[in-house]
Amino acid sequence: MKTGFIGLGGMGTGMARNIAQAGLLSGLYNRTAAKAHSLAGELNVPAYERPALLAADMDIVLICVSADDDLLGVINAIAKALKPGSIVVDMSTVSRFTAKTAAALLAEHRVDFLDAPVSGGVEGARNGTLAMMVGGSAETLEKARPVLETMCSRIAHMGETGAGQATKAVNQILCAGINEAVTEALAFAEAQGLPMEKVIEVVSGGAAGNWFLDRRGLTMTRGVFAPGFKLALHHKDLKICQEMARQAGISIPLADVTVADYQKLMAQGYGDEDISALYRLKKPAAKASGEN
Amino acid sequence: MKTGFIGLGGMGTGMARNIAQAGLLSGLYNRTAAKAHSLAGELNVPAYERPALLAADMDIVLICVSADDDLLGVINAIAKALKPGSIVVDMSTVSRFTAKTAAALLAEHRVDFLDAPVSGGVEGARNGTLAMMVGGSAETLEKARPVLETMCSRIAHMGETGAGQATKAVNQILCAGINEAVTEALAFAEAQGLPMEKVIEVVSGGAAGNWFLDRRGLTMTRGVFAPGFKLALHHKDLKICQEMARQAGISIPLADVTVADYQKLMAQGYGDEDISALYRLKKPAAKASGEN
Repeated sequence: MKTGFIGLGGMGTGMARNIAQAGLLSGLYNRTAAKAHSLAGELNVPAYERPALLAADMDIVLICVSADDDLLGVINAIAKALKPGSIVVDMSTVSRFTAKTAAALLAEHRVDFLDAPVSGGVEGARNGTLAMMVGGSAETLEKARPVLETMCSRIAHMGETGAGQATKAVNQILCAGINEAVTEALAFAEAQGLPMEKVIEVVSGGAAGNWFLDRRGLTMTRGVFAPGFKLALHHKDLKICQEMARQAGISIPLADVTVADYQKLMAQGYGDEDISALYRLKKPAAKASGEN
Repeated sequence: MKTGFIGLGGMGTGMARNIAQAGLLSGLYNRTAAKAHSLAGELNVPAYERPALLAADMDIVLICVSADDDLLGVINAIAKALKPGSIVVDMSTVSRFTAKTAAALLAEHRVDFLDAPVSGGVEGARNGTLAMMVGGSAETLEKARPVLETMCSRIAHMGETGAGQATKAVNQILCAGINEAVTEALAFAEAQGLPMEKVIEVVSGGAAGNWFLDRRGLTMTRGVFAPGFKLALHHKDLKICQEMARQAGISIPLADVTVADYQKLMAQGYGDEDISALYRLKKPAAKASGEN
């Protein structure tokens, strides 16, 4: 089964390397051609000049781009060129409605579609340890599974088209809420003059324990915000979540607060920092101005 | 070193049993005398009729009561009776200001004080696996440690008097925020029609992973709210946190939201349920009314 890959950002590059390492990669495309040529040389596969040319050659096309419009642009560019019976797997984080639109466009050409967003970040993409949340038919997933397993340590089939994106949205909403919770609690701890390392250690061991406190707690109180997960990207994802919530008639007030907080930080030029930079808005005032 | 215990609620009973099991318990007092007599018979130690009578006989007095006023009532009752050089350890969750008041009252009688709130719940108290956050002098802690170790798997010295309570407050604020985050995200997931067991499993493995989602995620979506940690007690703790935040000049907006939410639930008669009953306010409307 010939496999092509479109979208060689931080995530896509790691993913493509792992597919190639398993001997399953047959071609690459990237909007910025230089990146595709460099990686193609390294992995000894062709770099295509246009996505449709790649699509015509493949049985399965994997996509990893940034935003909903980017994905639909790629889908429109490749739909006609794809062979009937081939499979498109989108690993970008987009709306469940966009996933449905993509699936419908491809179905017209008898091409199957999976929405398959991942979590685990650039590190997970590099190490092949991503967690993948898949929407679409179980049969299609089984066909694609040998390729997907080269990138993932866990693949969960969540339901029909869009269910993968809906699950990713749950993850992003929860990350937002936990970010608000951890930054608020640690700012309180600093305001109480507590030894932060000890606080994080003792609190981590109990009912308030969480991944984010463990991995980002101490660095945020030290003013270190190296990504990690870029704040501007989480903001983009949460805007998608807000639209999905609106259409489902459910409110997500904590995610709404996080969107507003991220907008403040982006306006101050912190969009490329890790999401833990939310601590900038929470830390005690005396610390913020360097006094005390 | 003769050890007495005051306050035999759900937590205190488990704690006293573990001290007795180590052969270190010399007496009990409880406001409701019947409870003290029953446990005293089981553990083969005397039950005292008044806290001052117990205090006069002991080298170390451990206290585990509900609220700030209860603690100060006990302290006032025992202060004069205690021998100079004896130690009082309070394991209740109260304000850091109350801890300082208690320490000052006892210092007049040359009695040392530790504020030593715990986390780990009734189960941790029963199993002797509590995490303890201690404020007060390191020297006093070392004297008390053999007794405290019979109840705890972890003892962290956080700083001077009040630092134990301040750390417990951090823990309670974080629990509140995480409760808001998890209930919001799972309500969104239900509104999207996702399979909840799979969602919780896949999300738990990533950057949004946390203890509360792991242990309370599935039960809350099934409408099971057996404590756990009683909502009315968390509400009481958060009121203390609000006062500590106000005095430190820092805002804790997420904890404020949780206090308001808990008040709604308590007004509806849910105060004795687990804190995960917050999900009652978040779950999608169709589910709430049993329709769909």
